[in-house]
Amino acid sequence: MATPNLDVVGIGNAIVDVLVPSTDTFLSNHELKKGIMALVDENRADALYRAMGSGVEASGGSCGNTMAGIASLGGKGAYIGKVRDDQLGKVFAHDMRAIGVRFDTAPLTKGPATARCLILVTPDAQRTMNTYLGACVELGPEDIDPALIQSAQVTYLEGYLFDPPRAKEAFRKAAKIAHDAGRKVSLSLSDPFCVDRYRDEFRDLVANHVDILFANESEICSLYEVNDFEDAVNRVRGNADIAVLTRSEQGSVVVTRDREHRIPVHKADSVVDSTGAGDLYAAGFLYGLTNGKDLVTSGKLGSLAAAEVISHYGARPETPLKDLAKKAGLL
Amino acid sequence: MATPNLDVVGIGNAIVDVLVPSTDTFLSNHELKKGIMALVDENRADALYRAMGSGVEASGGSCGNTMAGIASLGGKGAYIGKVRDDQLGKVFAHDMRAIGVRFDTAPLTKGPATARCLILVTPDAQRTMNTYLGACVELGPEDIDPALIQSAQVTYLEGYLFDPPRAKEAFRKAAKIAHDAGRKVSLSLSDPFCVDRYRDEFRDLVANHVDILFANESEICSLYEVNDFEDAVNRVRGNADIAVLTRSEQGSVVVTRDREHRIPVHKADSVVDSTGAGDLYAAGFLYGLTNGKDLVTSGKLGSLAAAEVISHYGARPETPLKDLAKKAGLL
Repeated sequence: MATPNLDVVGIGNAIVDVLVPSTDTFLSNHELKKGIMALVDENRADALYRAMGSGVEASGGSCGNTMAGIASLGGKGAYIGKVRDDQLGKVFAHDMRAIGVRFDTAPLTKGPATARCLILVTPDAQRTMNTYLGACVELGPEDIDPALIQSAQVTYLEGYLFDPPRAKEAFRKAAKIAHDAGRKVSLSLSDPFCVDRYRDEFRDLVANHVDILFANESEICSLYEVNDFEDAVNRVRGNADIAVLTRSEQGSVVVTRDREHRIPVHKADSVVDSTGAGDLYAAGFLYGLTNGKDLVTSGKLGSLAAAEVISHYGARPETPLKDLAKKAGLL
Repeated sequence: MATPNLDVVGIGNAIVDVLVPSTDTFLSNHELKKGIMALVDENRADALYRAMGSGVEASGGSCGNTMAGIASLGGKGAYIGKVRDDQLGKVFAHDMRAIGVRFDTAPLTKGPATARCLILVTPDAQRTMNTYLGACVELGPEDIDPALIQSAQVTYLEGYLFDPPRAKEAFRKAAKIAHDAGRKVSLSLSDPFCVDRYRDEFRDLVANHVDILFANESEICSLYEVNDFEDAVNRVRGNADIAVLTRSEQGSVVVTRDREHRIPVHKADSVVDSTGAGDLYAAGFLYGLTNGKDLVTSGKLGSLAAAEVISHYGARPETPLKDLAKKAGLL
């Protein structure tokens, strides 16, 4: 087997974000649960879009954001995800390639449009997401190129992939190819309600197929149906080889079979929009891990990347993370 | 004739911006002239887009930005401009309506796509614009609703309208309807190279058909082919009833037949991206003028609106201008 020439290949729902400043009143008037990702059909997406304010469009998707972060740190990555050959699909593909991430998944030439996520940002910097999956529902195992998976040290999968009907087959195929090639498999739990939807499958994955797990406090508590974070830490220990648990302003914890590393939060200049914080933490951590850094340094890179992305509007870095990491003495 | 119920109706090229951070090296490698708007065909737009970095999409267009500013100040406006019924056209229409601006121009159902402007923002906050006019080339006199023009105190036209082939007919039709109804006609010269392209027509318009003219220093100097700003001031005096001349950090001058008012610049918190500065100055001034403010206060409202828009990425206000203007004691 050849030496892997990529750090990470990511598989995710390829989504263009529509970012709109909003208010608590708007959320309650439209029965939207703050901080959560809700799946919406096209009619609901259109109705919400009509009701909401003027927005800005930017390429997004949880795993897409992570790959953008890895590229911003100087890492080598590829992305697998499904768009249509429409205007927003071309924007998504352009943005991925423009940051140096390989993206070769064939776009749909008919059927549903490129996925959109209507993201309402409230003054408390929380984001409330409404995703119309569109073309993502067509991602399937035929989109997984074995040679690409084999060429990466880590295959990174977002939990949201369990929402579209055939993507989990792609997910499982990729994980098997990666392991057969001696590579690592990483999973992000994505969202506590996503965990609710697929708890049994996620528990099985974490116990048997995932080497590096990412979850925030509410996701890991949801996975094990516990209320206390330390209970969740004890439950996850020894399941995934490495469990990376993020706790917003309380920092993060990296849990291995026999160790726990508590990583302090990297202070953000300001907190404007929390969209992408978890995605960028994963980016920093995976970049560190695939580039010879220890677990603590990898965690600090995650914290640094998260701090950058919450300091401005939008879910992808604006300042090159490599420069910030060098300045912080982490690279 | 009924009392006008709108402050301003604007007519312009309906464009979605693609904002990309860039460098002087990129500009010179691609033979782009800094600070200028260049018209590009679809092939050149695609080639530039492929070469440029990851971007953010936002509704723009010079006059569209002005109408957004008027709405942000609490003004009542309508917009006339041509999009296609594609994804970016829907984004443009949504954003216009979401800020409270009436927008009823029928979209194209076939033919060229919604216009895009690839805007390269260099670290000195200058923007270099490359416009693919797309659907804008189909704007024509049939898109001018006489009742709408009659219902507004001011009809505001961007000079860029002279670029697409039939829009100038729409422009002249609207100006005539406005004057026949006792309304005012306002023109922005848009860009010094735009003035170069249509100098004779613009001179005739300014001398005979325009009540309120907006131009920056290089545009007004280009109009009269003079090198000295004060020469240009003397030339424009008595042509348009009101000539509003902006000079970046040197403030602005409002010139009438018998008076000159020098308006100091409104200090921006920071200067990030100059895109939209002139458009927003026009917004503040026109809002003031149509809401009973004197020329000096109107100019200060223009300066305030311009200061907001250059303090962040993108060409439309992020903070409600009405709040800022109240805080500054201008409303």
